[in-house]
Amino acid sequence: MNQTRQTAEFSNIRLILEFDGSAFNGWQVQVKGRTVQGEIERAIYEVTGEKVRVTGCSRTDAGVHAKQFVLNFPTKTKIPAERLRYPLNNKLPADIRILESTKVPLTFHARKHALAKTYVYRFINAEIEPAIGRQYISLEKGELDEAAMQAVLPLFLGRHDFKAFMSQGSPVASTLRVIYQLKLERDNNQYTLSVTGNGFLYNMVRIIVGTLFYVGHGTRTLEDVRRALTLGNRDLAGKVAQARGLMLERVIYDPADPILNLE
Amino acid sequence: MNQTRQTAEFSNIRLILEFDGSAFNGWQVQVKGRTVQGEIERAIYEVTGEKVRVTGCSRTDAGVHAKQFVLNFPTKTKIPAERLRYPLNNKLPADIRILESTKVPLTFHARKHALAKTYVYRFINAEIEPAIGRQYISLEKGELDEAAMQAVLPLFLGRHDFKAFMSQGSPVASTLRVIYQLKLERDNNQYTLSVTGNGFLYNMVRIIVGTLFYVGHGTRTLEDVRRALTLGNRDLAGKVAQARGLMLERVIYDPADPILNLE
Repeated sequence: MNQTRQTAEFSNIRLILEFDGSAFNGWQVQVKGRTVQGEIERAIYEVTGEKVRVTGCSRTDAGVHAKQFVLNFPTKTKIPAERLRYPLNNKLPADIRILESTKVPLTFHARKHALAKTYVYRFINAEIEPAIGRQYISLEKGELDEAAMQAVLPLFLGRHDFKAFMSQGSPVASTLRVIYQLKLERDNNQYTLSVTGNGFLYNMVRIIVGTLFYVGHGTRTLEDVRRALTLGNRDLAGKVAQARGLMLERVIYDPADPILNLE
Repeated sequence: MNQTRQTAEFSNIRLILEFDGSAFNGWQVQVKGRTVQGEIERAIYEVTGEKVRVTGCSRTDAGVHAKQFVLNFPTKTKIPAERLRYPLNNKLPADIRILESTKVPLTFHARKHALAKTYVYRFINAEIEPAIGRQYISLEKGELDEAAMQAVLPLFLGRHDFKAFMSQGSPVASTLRVIYQLKLERDNNQYTLSVTGNGFLYNMVRIIVGTLFYVGHGTRTLEDVRRALTLGNRDLAGKVAQARGLMLERVIYDPADPILNLE
């Protein structure tokens, strides 16, 4: 009964936000350093007087950006949910902007209910990095064999054990993940890799990109990548590509989303 | 004879660079503050041991960016001109990148010989500004009548006295300027204005943009803009739009460039 009364008082609020990760030590609150979660929780406290822990859709690393990041948190505030974003944006720094605030069912969980995520990784194949927009693109020097990079992409599609494409971090229950879509596009010397999957291991996208770099330079073959996937051998994969080229582009909650039918 | 000997020892070097103006107090060396010119002259000194004054193609304001900025300077260095950009880039901060270094005739003058410049101004018509890429776009809130803005653009084309579109600054010999091309494009709520002219008065592009904002909001009419141009009355034009949306896109030296034939 206590439980019922309590949940009846709380609303579950979902925020959709965008952030520039350049000056953040990642999403998750750390002992030291400026984090997106820390800024959001501070702003919520300043607006509502409530000390809450927000639930994010994923943990992004230092320097990684998000075009669409979803989180939820419980609140007793009387401010209408749709209006909540205005005072929150006023309390937030310019590198975080809340695009939408909505009241959602109490059962909604931003991480557990995310069915898939799309990440985009941008890199420029040049000798010098650009001055303008350098926060959002990484530099990969030296000649790249684009055809060789394109040829390995299909290997990643579908359900695989991505153990070879993971940095050491918190233990995970399973290293099996599904990649629904993987696409590498080029515009002159600028490349954009977009990848949609049901979940991503620690540094997984950046190691896939690092592996593509090795393949592009001829340091790894298609066969090496195939063996990395079947044997789970980290050494057969590539380096961890720089964080700043990475952007969380979209989080998918709707099971009817056509992108998921590619599984 | 002295003169001849001296010029024979010096080379005239042209640098083409790109810079992110966000953290600069503009191009020109000031008593206080970090400037692009100051950084370049420091780097040249560190590489060649020579204290030079570089000649820039234009003076950009604080917060304004340049995708292509041209300058020249005299040097006695023995480093081959084409290679000079490497040690200079090593000594420069990441928000300035030299794209090209070339030996040019001693007569070349980056400002006097520039026939035209293209500036691009980006703005977003929304209620909140983006977190990602906010350094390169300005925010204009409230409804904008795009058709009304498009309708005034032709008024600016050609040779006009742009006295009404100038902020007070250093005195200028003439306020007559020629605009060769002016184009406003929209992609959803993002607008891009590009303007090519033989020269620009202090804040001229930003005041043209501010005037378009007023026209878009209905605060100024097409007739007001026509009168601003004929009467030279600053009050009939608009505010000075924010600096960060502005980018020097291109500097034109070649008289055969087709864009100049629009005059």
